[in-house]
Amino acid sequence: MSDPRFLFAHRLVVRFHDCDMMGHVNHAVYFTYFEQCRLSWWRTLGPGPGIVGATTNIVHAACDYQAPAYVNDELEIRLALERIGRSSVALTYEIVNVATDQRLATGRTVNVTLDHETLRPIPVPDAARALMTGGPIE
Amino acid sequence: MSDPRFLFAHRLVVRFHDCDMMGHVNHAVYFTYFEQCRLSWWRTLGPGPGIVGATTNIVHAACDYQAPAYVNDELEIRLALERIGRSSVALTYEIVNVATDQRLATGRTVNVTLDHETLRPIPVPDAARALMTGGPIE
Amino acid sequence: MSDPRFLFAHRLVVRFHDCDMMGHVNHAVYFTYFEQCRLSWWRTLGPGPGIVGATTNIVHAACDYQAPAYVNDELEIRLALERIGRSSVALTYEIVNVATDQRLATGRTVNVTLDHETLRPIPVPDAARALMTGGPIE
Amino acid sequence: MSDPRFLFAHRLVVRFHDCDMMGHVNHAVYFTYFEQCRLSWWRTLGPGPGIVGATTNIVHAACDYQAPAYVNDELEIRLALERIGRSSVALTYEIVNVATDQRLATGRTVNVTLDHETLRPIPVPDAARALMTGGPIE
Repeated sequence: MSDPRFLFAHRLVVRFHDCDMMGHVNHAVYFTYFEQCRLSWWRTLGPGPGIVGATTNIVHAACDYQAPAYVNDELEIRLALERIGRSSVALTYEIVNVATDQRLATGRTVNVTLDHETLRPIPVPDAARALMTGGPIE
Repeated sequence: MSDPRFLFAHRLVVRFHDCDMMGHVNHAVYFTYFEQCRLSWWRTLGPGPGIVGATTNIVHAACDYQAPAYVNDELEIRLALERIGRSSVALTYEIVNVATDQRLATGRTVNVTLDHETLRPIPVPDAARALMTGGPIE
Repeated sequence: MSDPRFLFAHRLVVRFHDCDMMGHVNHAVYFTYFEQCRLSWWRTLGPGPGIVGATTNIVHAACDYQAPAYVNDELEIRLALERIGRSSVALTYEIVNVATDQRLATGRTVNVTLDHETLRPIPVPDAARALMTGGPIE
Repeated sequence: MSDPRFLFAHRLVVRFHDCDMMGHVNHAVYFTYFEQCRLSWWRTLGPGPGIVGATTNIVHAACDYQAPAYVNDELEIRLALERIGRSSVALTYEIVNVATDQRLATGRTVNVTLDHETLRPIPVPDAARALMTGGPIE
């Protein structure tokens, strides 16, 4: 990954069912791609589907679309840590076509950390904070 | 519903995202339509997303496709009770285009009843059996 | 619709398959809900799946999530015209739970207008511009 | 692949969004997995998303579910050629968890071959027939 900000990359192949009548990947599916990258990153940092010591809920998601992706394209989704707030984790993304190295989209998500039981906001656990800021892991 | 075997009907509108590059509803989505009809039926019979007194798991699903459905088509999914076995519920379906009355697909599912806790098969609860065989409810 | 800015509303019911392991609607699906509202609006303004006289492509999508939606919830997606640019249409949205009147999410999309054949940007057609700015239509 | 009948295998990773509130892959998604395997196989046999010389349309799909799949599981979808009829191609499938070698599901699809232009049934093109019966290709 050329940009040093990106600290994790996840690859996947576009499914036929990801595409819509326009012939390319439906725009909503990009958020699923970001999600796969984010969860795969968190999985490398600890057990469970989310971050260590908390449940997370997404409160913001955005994507800018630069070029279409097509069925069977291999994509690399790259993730950077923008900021860890008191109870939030802001991530940025880019999606690149592996074969052409063309950037297809950039995105951003904000997750809040919640108590597993009460589902009320809690501070980002120290352990999770340390793991996420540990630098490049791949 | 012309056929007296059908005892529940659920209507929905085809979403753009249900359709694939062929320009019509992707075949996998028909199973989601059946699912919506089945769960809506069960919902009329009692609280919760499944049948009364049990968790269910699908063990078989099949669909025969007769004609395509297109974005914004209003569809009616109709459901008949084929058979309640010791630990299973077999249902059949048809999907009809509301505007044209054309039948688009027929299907079949088999669900097994499981204990909420152990997730092991249990007999179809008597209450659920009685509710499901109570005849037309709409 | 209380807010006069909203000029179109689309209702739909949350499908079981819209929900993920967290037990509520997956965040990516909100963009499908916006899409359904946007396309339904355009459909009221003319034939075809998009706006009159052009193909459109989405270049930006964003959503802020305030409260979860659950299976079988009836949702109303409301749409406002933020701005028609030279070759772009910016829309804002809100999603409201019909039963509780609670607002669940707000969103924004930007579409660009493309020539049907060349798929290169073209000015928003005058006819489409007039139709979209015609004021409340429902 | 132990069973000599299987002549193509496709691997993929379960996405979070493939799973539903039950915590495992939604049953409808298995048909998307079959589809990915089928299209990947056809892609090895020639250009385009389908078989050589024809458009295809699915007319039957069925799945038997033996065990659940979970998020991030790596799955291998295996495909066997059951029969090429005059205008149809019947395929069978199995889905295996790569890590455990457990079989999770078996399935079957029937596609009909259509003329690209008229979308009316045509005989399976000789070239496609030869390619599909050419034996193991992986």
